[in-house]
Amino acid sequence: MPRIHFHLQLAELKDKLLAMAALSQQAVESAVDAWLQRDAGLCQYVRENETAINTAQREVDEMAYELLSREQPMAIDLRFILAVIKINGDLERIGDMAVSIAVRTLDLLDQDPIDLPVDIAGMGDFAGRMIRTAVQALLDGDALVAESVRDMDDEIDRMNRVAITELTHVIQEHPETADHALPAILVSRNLERIADHATNIATDVIFWVRGADLRHQLSMAVD
Amino acid sequence: MPRIHFHLQLAELKDKLLAMAALSQQAVESAVDAWLQRDAGLCQYVRENETAINTAQREVDEMAYELLSREQPMAIDLRFILAVIKINGDLERIGDMAVSIAVRTLDLLDQDPIDLPVDIAGMGDFAGRMIRTAVQALLDGDALVAESVRDMDDEIDRMNRVAITELTHVIQEHPETADHALPAILVSRNLERIADHATNIATDVIFWVRGADLRHQLSMAVD
Repeated sequence: MPRIHFHLQLAELKDKLLAMAALSQQAVESAVDAWLQRDAGLCQYVRENETAINTAQREVDEMAYELLSREQPMAIDLRFILAVIKINGDLERIGDMAVSIAVRTLDLLDQDPIDLPVDIAGMGDFAGRMIRTAVQALLDGDALVAESVRDMDDEIDRMNRVAITELTHVIQEHPETADHALPAILVSRNLERIADHATNIATDVIFWVRGADLRHQLSMAVD
Repeated sequence: MPRIHFHLQLAELKDKLLAMAALSQQAVESAVDAWLQRDAGLCQYVRENETAINTAQREVDEMAYELLSREQPMAIDLRFILAVIKINGDLERIGDMAVSIAVRTLDLLDQDPIDLPVDIAGMGDFAGRMIRTAVQALLDGDALVAESVRDMDDEIDRMNRVAITELTHVIQEHPETADHALPAILVSRNLERIADHATNIATDVIFWVRGADLRHQLSMAVD
């Protein structure tokens, strides 16, 4: 099979992964909106969207496997395909987290809303920006952009710690709010985990572009 | 390079992955014991163990990459190496969850212990058994054993739901216990996530042995 055909297939694999990334990003944005607006329809959308994400994930994995099996790629092409397989897994888990947020939202819909000291909108925006930046780094093969995602992770970790502290105080002072404050803690942690997956994606981009396994240097700095 | 040499290398890769699995299992058991016995030394051990896990993960990934790159494996050998790469990632995340449990334990050490209606010991045993069973399936290439891990996942999901419900009641009735009950909720969720990673490992074993991508058939049945 001619080499040029192989590179067209790599480009197609990248497109498939970008479509997968769009679905995951969409899921996070919809789940956060569903939580903020208490919108049962959006929750349902997030749950249906998960099926599309799972189908897209399988297609990406199958194409990556086919390419590895048929083309025996070397060096940077091999690293790219391995990065795609890992990024694909992170995107699927981002979708799972979005479903968790939607399920928690549905559980609360029959209760009156209350004000809580937690900035879910801000955390959602921030996590969404991290996914977008990581995907941009993938699109451009830009390790510097990927590294900037690592710095962002510190900030969302901080937001999550603040949220847990504040919400714990609320529960202690107004225990009748626990039904709302506990799910809010879990949603905050879901968003922090979504950000972790974006950081994983950025690290895989760096591995693809530079060939170095920076995972634990990064994760040690981030923890 | 002769084919027999390649199969020796695959066996070596499997041994490396089993050593990695032993470290991750060790981390979970130590973290649960640290929580139950409020043992600062064990917490420290879990944190130091994480460095060993990260080193082992890098070695497995590098060897898998080398084999893919040099040997151009086909069919079942290729599926095995891809499964190793994915399982390696799940084992590393199991180690991360163990560190989370150790960190929460350390946070509580300066406070008097209180009794909470949550069976962390039972959940820890169960999650440990799931990891062991998944690793056994890997060792024997046994898809039936791997499938049994899927059934176990329902049970730990149930234990986690019961724990969250019970602990939420405790917080509402005795808000002064929130400092303990909230970390207990998070530890329960960490153990449930550890079980999810064991389920992922089992699914990758099935993919390796049977060549079918059962991920979403499994996950739909499990959710």
